[in-house]
Amino acid sequence: MPKLDVAILGATGAVGQRFIQLLENHPWFRVAEVVASDRSAGKPYAEACRWVLAGQPPSEVAQLNVLPLDAELNSPIVLSALPGDVAKTLEPELAARGHVVSSNTSSHRMAADVPILLPDINADHVRLVDVQRRNRGWTSGALVTMSNCTIVAMVVALAPLLKFGVKQINLVSMQAISGAGYPGVASLDILDNVIPYIGGEEEKAETEPRKILGALASDHVNMLDATISAACNRVPVLDGHLVCVSVGFEHKPSLDDIKAAWAAFEGHPDARSLPSAPHPIIVYTDGPDRPQPRRDREAGRGMTTTVGRLRECPLLDVKFVGLSHNTIRGAAGGAILNAELLVAQGYVQNAPVALTATAAD
Amino acid sequence: MPKLDVAILGATGAVGQRFIQLLENHPWFRVAEVVASDRSAGKPYAEACRWVLAGQPPSEVAQLNVLPLDAELNSPIVLSALPGDVAKTLEPELAARGHVVSSNTSSHRMAADVPILLPDINADHVRLVDVQRRNRGWTSGALVTMSNCTIVAMVVALAPLLKFGVKQINLVSMQAISGAGYPGVASLDILDNVIPYIGGEEEKAETEPRKILGALASDHVNMLDATISAACNRVPVLDGHLVCVSVGFEHKPSLDDIKAAWAAFEGHPDARSLPSAPHPIIVYTDGPDRPQPRRDREAGRGMTTTVGRLRECPLLDVKFVGLSHNTIRGAAGGAILNAELLVAQGYVQNAPVALTATAAD
Amino acid sequence: MPKLDVAILGATGAVGQRFIQLLENHPWFRVAEVVASDRSAGKPYAEACRWVLAGQPPSEVAQLNVLPLDAELNSPIVLSALPGDVAKTLEPELAARGHVVSSNTSSHRMAADVPILLPDINADHVRLVDVQRRNRGWTSGALVTMSNCTIVAMVVALAPLLKFGVKQINLVSMQAISGAGYPGVASLDILDNVIPYIGGEEEKAETEPRKILGALASDHVNMLDATISAACNRVPVLDGHLVCVSVGFEHKPSLDDIKAAWAAFEGHPDARSLPSAPHPIIVYTDGPDRPQPRRDREAGRGMTTTVGRLRECPLLDVKFVGLSHNTIRGAAGGAILNAELLVAQGYVQNAPVALTATAAD
Amino acid sequence: MPKLDVAILGATGAVGQRFIQLLENHPWFRVAEVVASDRSAGKPYAEACRWVLAGQPPSEVAQLNVLPLDAELNSPIVLSALPGDVAKTLEPELAARGHVVSSNTSSHRMAADVPILLPDINADHVRLVDVQRRNRGWTSGALVTMSNCTIVAMVVALAPLLKFGVKQINLVSMQAISGAGYPGVASLDILDNVIPYIGGEEEKAETEPRKILGALASDHVNMLDATISAACNRVPVLDGHLVCVSVGFEHKPSLDDIKAAWAAFEGHPDARSLPSAPHPIIVYTDGPDRPQPRRDREAGRGMTTTVGRLRECPLLDVKFVGLSHNTIRGAAGGAILNAELLVAQGYVQNAPVALTATAAD
Repeated sequence: MPKLDVAILGATGAVGQRFIQLLENHPWFRVAEVVASDRSAGKPYAEACRWVLAGQPPSEVAQLNVLPLDAELNSPIVLSALPGDVAKTLEPELAARGHVVSSNTSSHRMAADVPILLPDINADHVRLVDVQRRNRGWTSGALVTMSNCTIVAMVVALAPLLKFGVKQINLVSMQAISGAGYPGVASLDILDNVIPYIGGEEEKAETEPRKILGALASDHVNMLDATISAACNRVPVLDGHLVCVSVGFEHKPSLDDIKAAWAAFEGHPDARSLPSAPHPIIVYTDGPDRPQPRRDREAGRGMTTTVGRLRECPLLDVKFVGLSHNTIRGAAGGAILNAELLVAQGYVQNAPVALTATAAD
Repeated sequence: MPKLDVAILGATGAVGQRFIQLLENHPWFRVAEVVASDRSAGKPYAEACRWVLAGQPPSEVAQLNVLPLDAELNSPIVLSALPGDVAKTLEPELAARGHVVSSNTSSHRMAADVPILLPDINADHVRLVDVQRRNRGWTSGALVTMSNCTIVAMVVALAPLLKFGVKQINLVSMQAISGAGYPGVASLDILDNVIPYIGGEEEKAETEPRKILGALASDHVNMLDATISAACNRVPVLDGHLVCVSVGFEHKPSLDDIKAAWAAFEGHPDARSLPSAPHPIIVYTDGPDRPQPRRDREAGRGMTTTVGRLRECPLLDVKFVGLSHNTIRGAAGGAILNAELLVAQGYVQNAPVALTATAAD
Repeated sequence: MPKLDVAILGATGAVGQRFIQLLENHPWFRVAEVVASDRSAGKPYAEACRWVLAGQPPSEVAQLNVLPLDAELNSPIVLSALPGDVAKTLEPELAARGHVVSSNTSSHRMAADVPILLPDINADHVRLVDVQRRNRGWTSGALVTMSNCTIVAMVVALAPLLKFGVKQINLVSMQAISGAGYPGVASLDILDNVIPYIGGEEEKAETEPRKILGALASDHVNMLDATISAACNRVPVLDGHLVCVSVGFEHKPSLDDIKAAWAAFEGHPDARSLPSAPHPIIVYTDGPDRPQPRRDREAGRGMTTTVGRLRECPLLDVKFVGLSHNTIRGAAGGAILNAELLVAQGYVQNAPVALTATAAD
Repeated sequence: MPKLDVAILGATGAVGQRFIQLLENHPWFRVAEVVASDRSAGKPYAEACRWVLAGQPPSEVAQLNVLPLDAELNSPIVLSALPGDVAKTLEPELAARGHVVSSNTSSHRMAADVPILLPDINADHVRLVDVQRRNRGWTSGALVTMSNCTIVAMVVALAPLLKFGVKQINLVSMQAISGAGYPGVASLDILDNVIPYIGGEEEKAETEPRKILGALASDHVNMLDATISAACNRVPVLDGHLVCVSVGFEHKPSLDDIKAAWAAFEGHPDARSLPSAPHPIIVYTDGPDRPQPRRDREAGRGMTTTVGRLRECPLLDVKFVGLSHNTIRGAAGGAILNAELLVAQGYVQNAPVALTATAAD
């Protein structure tokens, strides 16, 4: 089966590199175009990019010439890891020109007709693409977003608990340095240190989960009616965002009810058969001191969320610890999964029929 | 003025070493005896001890012979950094033999007639020594304790806010490896990692603050009527426990009210002139990303608590970040300050009159 | 094809765990027995072992009961990661009882009739097994050793250069904490620090390479006639030993001669088809700041040696930087490769004929 | 006694900050002017500078307005931590305008009439200022430099050994991240990693020591006749450059001869009484695993060099480990010491007579 061409925007950055790493040997997609700022444009990717992941960039991509931001792209699918200001205008432009854009940037997440997709949880929110096509006059183009990386473990863990009426959430994060991109956090700032602040992060963490976990209405998402308080910290960890979460419910479940809900969680049926779908979506670990970023971030090839230490909370109802890989599940892997959902749901024109059937398996 | 002799129990451990480091050039005290487990006893301190702090042990102490745990001690004051099981029996024995014991161990903290002293906050709790002497038939001996290190920044920050009626506290800690002693945390466990669990720590953090901040009654302390939820994490930081705190009040103060209370806080009058008393007790920092362990732990020679990022909390009333040095303010420095209070308050027999007058200045 | 049973000695330690991790899905071997100290014996492996690698132990091994050191073993092949003192007597005993022992311990490395095997380099040294069987009256048993992990990158890099007459070697290592086992290096010792000393390491580094690179004579190995000076340092890195090497030759090659020798190196023919043989054995990297432990240690699934920065040396002839994964190529992976060689060369009784043919491909 | 005004060039950078920190309460100098790039100029220092050291900038300096690079300066003494390209032209211009410039930059180190000063070692090289004044027509101005930070521990350790005829030096460094300035090394590059390359560093390390340790001739320095080979590595350490050094001598001394030479070393008499002179200059530590960056860098307030592990070298004659604080002894502290020497030697016009007498004590 021929693969679908994909363009990577912001290809030389930390998330851009993860896109490229994860797409090596992807069953549906092939990196055909790499796009970056003017400073990199015109050079072979291997030369333009300071590869910060392990090893070397895949050789097929290494020799691609980096295209400038204003290039005419041929790939039907665009994966974007652009900085917010550039994404603001360029992503809708590309959608208007007919590209299906799966973005990892925050610029458009809160737009009423743009979904924040975590397909395991809210695959149905993809229907907002129909709304945006109507609203904006796009024909074959689309724009969907991946959430902020900080909240992923919490949102995934809470999805199967919505039936108990999640009302209050306290979130304290310990976030990896890779979340800040490259060069990102200076080593002089973080070695033997914690930075108890990440610009803009707490605001996103207190808002985005309510949209992701909200219910799709005709032309928008009704935000989940819950109150969230977030405190975000940067710690000297390479990958993996760890979160301490306390939750208050309308109908307080027992600890066993919660563990049972996690164990039974198979995610939205439309997402189960996508190539990058996590299996399992959630792992509950009995280890008294788990999850830990270094030891659990690679679970399910970086797509599985690990939770542990579920216990009573003297203030709210229960508390637990969650972990997900911030540049895989929480960024590049998540945006690839979103692109897969768009293909499977028929939003990508001329995609092989075999693929659009996938999710129906 | 001649100095008072002090014995250090657990002298070769991480907190024992801090005692010795902090007592170099202390105006009142002189390390006269060093006590450790049988493995170390009989050797010169420099040989028995693997010094883990910077530089070398002070030369006066380096040549002291390490005494065994059952040695007859001559020092009127005993500073204890013993493991809990040994402290359980040995500390009261030493008090019964007439020594004034200032302990850093948890074994006796919750005994009704033993105070957990942070003199800036609750110097009056030292009156429980009268109670314990009555109860236990001790004449010149005494036993006072320093709190768990995790809660110090939070407790100090809340002390000036008690007037607003502190009712609910959520605490998430990011704790330094030195809190686990030496060898303590294996590097294979903590490099590029966070461990979201510290044995017994959350229980202490949910209990001890209520005693420290409680009100002295005739023969015990009435616990503060507040609910605390704690989640404790180990991070790759050498020294300095950072805490994210949310607080709910009976009478919600404004952010400015809180900052004013912190700025005005001078601590209990009996503690102000003690040699190790912090000046100031609390610093509020306007830096958007402060306090940070590495950059703020040495404030006030490790005795000052730094708070920052005071802001509204969507769930409770306010939230902030606090930091204190865990092996200075939160352990050895705190226990030395407690011993100073005992001297100044006349609980150490034959102490020079000049010292007992100090606190009255 | 049925797999050969393997017993792991020291199974709960850091190298023992790597053995178990690497043997998951091994084409020839199956972990049938796990052996550890009395403290662990009798418990299921998952309970006896504090797993320090990522994830969890493989489930087949997790449920094995840990055997005591004096257990009668059934596996024809024994992989040993015992502490030196225990290995000293137990390894030869097991060989005497008929087991083929592939050891990662230093105790027997320098015995005249025991080879230090790196099959890519000196597969022919396996003939010392015939000598030891003669000398010691062993019939089906054997004892071979893997070298010290520090020297592997250097030894592998020098093997293809022996033709130029290697005469002088200066080695400065920067070694990962995993080399010290678990708990091993205390985090208080290594965070924000380097320890310029590793007990016994420099002596091994100045001796073992001369045996590994030496020529097999009738009943022993003639040591390579070269002078080595080593300085060994511990750095805050999880895995991967980095070495700065300077070399003086009898017949000085050009830098291009050396690169050509590395590029052409295919290793000893008897080793090429073994399942764990590295492909390629050596990678030369043009990156100006490579190899780096974190980015290059996983090359060739941890079995490839990466070299870089080849340049003239003002003192000797040339200098370069080398890296190999210390617990894979330099320990568990290396000892597994040695066991594979023993099978392929017919030293394991009753091994399937198919396997002994492998190396002849 | 009134203090001498000092201007700091590059005041907002990492070394600029160290200048300011070290000059707080300096007995001779007072920071009167802070100079930085156009981006910072015009703002109060506290606002222009992201302070990366512990605590906060001293309040007297915090409120100074940052001056632009082309400002007319009033301070007789200028301490420069400028980037190389800016220093290239600006430092001689300032000297031409009458300022005494003590630079930490590499641009002019190898100019024949500019000394690389480490006053303990080569205080007499300051006479090159007379040469440069003659050569360049400068009247009251001067330009002296501090060496590269990497070589300081080695150069200081070798100075007392020159009498044995130092002929060959092999140097492998493990350098702290602060040596790269701020933001400098990205945390994604150095956490759990070593970078075996620092641009331009090996060239400096193979050249500068020969000038520093050379003999002053009439109008230049005769380079020490020794061959140096250097390999430079960046390690995850905040401060303190550790070096593994091997040395070959013309007349090989015993290990005891070397220790005796180190113990007896008091440095050049003109440098002994300078306020920032290290006391002692060299400490030899018997600790088997010392010096270590974190535990020894603060020796002598960061100005003392610690050496240890002196032993025979199989290749050259002896080897040892050395350590000095790279941003204190190896940068800001060193350049301040150089400025003190210039004052004491009468090279600063209108300096109080009391100061010029100092060195004669």
